[in-house]
Amino acid sequence: MKPNFSLRLRVFNLNCWDIPYLSMHRADRLKRLGDFLNLESFDLALLQEVWSEQDFQDLRQKLSLTYPDAHYFKSGIIGSGLCVFSRHPIQEVIQHVYTLNGYPYMVCHGDWFCGKAVGLLVLHLNGLVLNAYVTHLHAEYSRKKDIYLAHRVAQAWELAQFIHHTSKSADVVLLCGDLNMHPKDLGCCLLKEWTGLRDAFVETQDFKGSEDGCTMVPTNCYVSQQDLGPFPLGIRIDYVLYKAVSGFCICCKTLKTTTGCDPHDGSPLSDHEALMATLYVKHSPPQDDSSPAHGPAGRSALMGVLREAWTELGLGIAQARWWAAFAGHVVVFGVFLLALLCVLAVGEGAREMAVLLWTPNVGLVLGAGALYIFHKQEARGLCRAQAELQHILRRERETQDLGSEPPLDPPLATEGGHG
Amino acid sequence: MKPNFSLRLRVFNLNCWDIPYLSMHRADRLKRLGDFLNLESFDLALLQEVWSEQDFQDLRQKLSLTYPDAHYFKSGIIGSGLCVFSRHPIQEVIQHVYTLNGYPYMVCHGDWFCGKAVGLLVLHLNGLVLNAYVTHLHAEYSRKKDIYLAHRVAQAWELAQFIHHTSKSADVVLLCGDLNMHPKDLGCCLLKEWTGLRDAFVETQDFKGSEDGCTMVPTNCYVSQQDLGPFPLGIRIDYVLYKAVSGFCICCKTLKTTTGCDPHDGSPLSDHEALMATLYVKHSPPQDDSSPAHGPAGRSALMGVLREAWTELGLGIAQARWWAAFAGHVVVFGVFLLALLCVLAVGEGAREMAVLLWTPNVGLVLGAGALYIFHKQEARGLCRAQAELQHILRRERETQDLGSEPPLDPPLATEGGHG
Repeated sequence: MKPNFSLRLRVFNLNCWDIPYLSMHRADRLKRLGDFLNLESFDLALLQEVWSEQDFQDLRQKLSLTYPDAHYFKSGIIGSGLCVFSRHPIQEVIQHVYTLNGYPYMVCHGDWFCGKAVGLLVLHLNGLVLNAYVTHLHAEYSRKKDIYLAHRVAQAWELAQFIHHTSKSADVVLLCGDLNMHPKDLGCCLLKEWTGLRDAFVETQDFKGSEDGCTMVPTNCYVSQQDLGPFPLGIRIDYVLYKAVSGFCICCKTLKTTTGCDPHDGSPLSDHEALMATLYVKHSPPQDDSSPAHGPAGRSALMGVLREAWTELGLGIAQARWWAAFAGHVVVFGVFLLALLCVLAVGEGAREMAVLLWTPNVGLVLGAGALYIFHKQEARGLCRAQAELQHILRRERETQDLGSEPPLDPPLATEGGHG
Repeated sequence: MKPNFSLRLRVFNLNCWDIPYLSMHRADRLKRLGDFLNLESFDLALLQEVWSEQDFQDLRQKLSLTYPDAHYFKSGIIGSGLCVFSRHPIQEVIQHVYTLNGYPYMVCHGDWFCGKAVGLLVLHLNGLVLNAYVTHLHAEYSRKKDIYLAHRVAQAWELAQFIHHTSKSADVVLLCGDLNMHPKDLGCCLLKEWTGLRDAFVETQDFKGSEDGCTMVPTNCYVSQQDLGPFPLGIRIDYVLYKAVSGFCICCKTLKTTTGCDPHDGSPLSDHEALMATLYVKHSPPQDDSSPAHGPAGRSALMGVLREAWTELGLGIAQARWWAAFAGHVVVFGVFLLALLCVLAVGEGAREMAVLLWTPNVGLVLGAGALYIFHKQEARGLCRAQAELQHILRRERETQDLGSEPPLDPPLATEGGHG
């Protein structure tokens, strides 16, 4: 690689709202999306909510000349909805499916069935290693009473940890996707503080697009006021985030969004707005910036966010345990009732009623049993994320107790050395 | 770090067979395990099948002076069973739960409820970064008719990928655990070929212990001949695997196993044998050994294993799809039967029989529905692993087609450079 080279990276991100049988004008929108991607020839196009694998295959065929490499991330029952088209060979792929992703009995919300995940692509661009991540977190259906908050915080933490641990040897890290979080939401802060990723909208030198960079806007004909909740002017929940590791620097020269309509013919590509970023990667003097949040102020902000997330997960754990205990009691009550119905069925008096009540009661016991298992698993998943946060907070306390010195290690058997 | 230092690392691994209410002499075995670990003061003790979190807490308290840091990996309904005790501060922890882990309806085998996972600990030892992984894969209940083979291969692949992507900046990588695979099993070869990890038993300069390094042996009073299946002399399914990355080399000076009895008083610590390895890490001239399998021979062996795994996963996918289709048909049949029962219940002739058959039929529809969802998810999980393998095989083919040259990248917008 030339020592002072500069690499331009053009990136496209869109939540495509491609739900078979449910999304409006799906075929037409995908056709126009394909045309647009072919015309613009981005380096990377990262898409979410492509719920139909056939649609991905159709797009792949259409884009095969401009984007020779592509990948569809499979998971869950329906899929992750994530896919990517690349102008450059994808060297490696891996994905991580989030442990927690809503509730199976919330069928109308459907997130649980999707197997939401984060996908990672490793690209080698002129000797530079680019880790590009694409993700889609659990939707927020009510801002006021968000029953999925703990799950989304846990997902944001898993995402941050996955990026932190898989990008240690990357030169440039890029994360695109629909985070379903506003810029100042806890999960979003947690993600940015722990990974050191920067927000293209905040950092860009030149922004063109919707007001305040919103990615769901009222002018989009597929967006209802109900979707926007208490933010009638729009919300920003889709992101392009990036960072460069020591030896490189990265900046966002331009960021564009669509504004509720197709860049060419006026009708929107999706209910979300597309993001188009032009990033420049350059060499820079090496700095020690590989670990999260530097300097006392940065460290203190990080610890504050970690503590807040720890508390939020604690509330989620209490809730999950309450539901598990409730379901457990219902199982016991149901089993007792089943025994009672058996006794009644043997006698003559209420035989028919006993037989009639048998079905709903068996359903009750099985349903409550499944609920018990599910919420036990939920509590454990939240506890796991909390334990990881707890570990970091404890390490930080120990470090502070030793006056900013790392805690003393026990003697290791080392030998020799004349350096 | 001194330029030619040498670091000694003493590691202990044991599948503890700590199942509340089921395992024999549990309290006594754990007490003796704690005493032994305190006495030996290893650098790291990595344990599997500690299914009781209370037992972990008791051990933690008992070992707190010798092993100041510890972590329990929570997951699934029961837990992952994985925990670790460390004489050195654990800098970071993360875990990955395997996508596939058996079948919920195989209650007697129980693996599905456990949330089998791989846990990662990052340790900084005298400036050296050690990534230590601990894991436990799905058990093999029948060698002849192994219905979990595809799941175990998928787990081995996920494990290999997790290690490959999270250890890129580590100096030394260590993997301990119960892989439930024999050394030449497909999953084991896949793991070793893709990660470059070496087997302590094969590499050690000095081995003491059970014949052929077996970790389940007939002399252990908790092991029945049924457990050993067609291998009456014992099986080797627990491992210490390791590698050093460029700039370091690692060797296993000694490897010991227990031999069906406690090192001190004669009765065994578990139904598995413990592994105790003494590893030495030294500086070595930098070599380009960060990517999997080098040289044409190594590359060809790797591709062979990847192809074999791809085929095995394909068989698993076909099986999963068959079950999903079968369950789907049962759902349709059950719904038809329910409609028929409704008609019969309205009439007079067979009313009581119709009411009596209602319960089992509702159960049939619900059960088959759950089975359908489960096997759809299973097929998708296997497809995902297969797609990752496919990606690597395709990249390899492209590279070979271009005469060992990497495929040509489309022009990237790069500027400047006078180097």
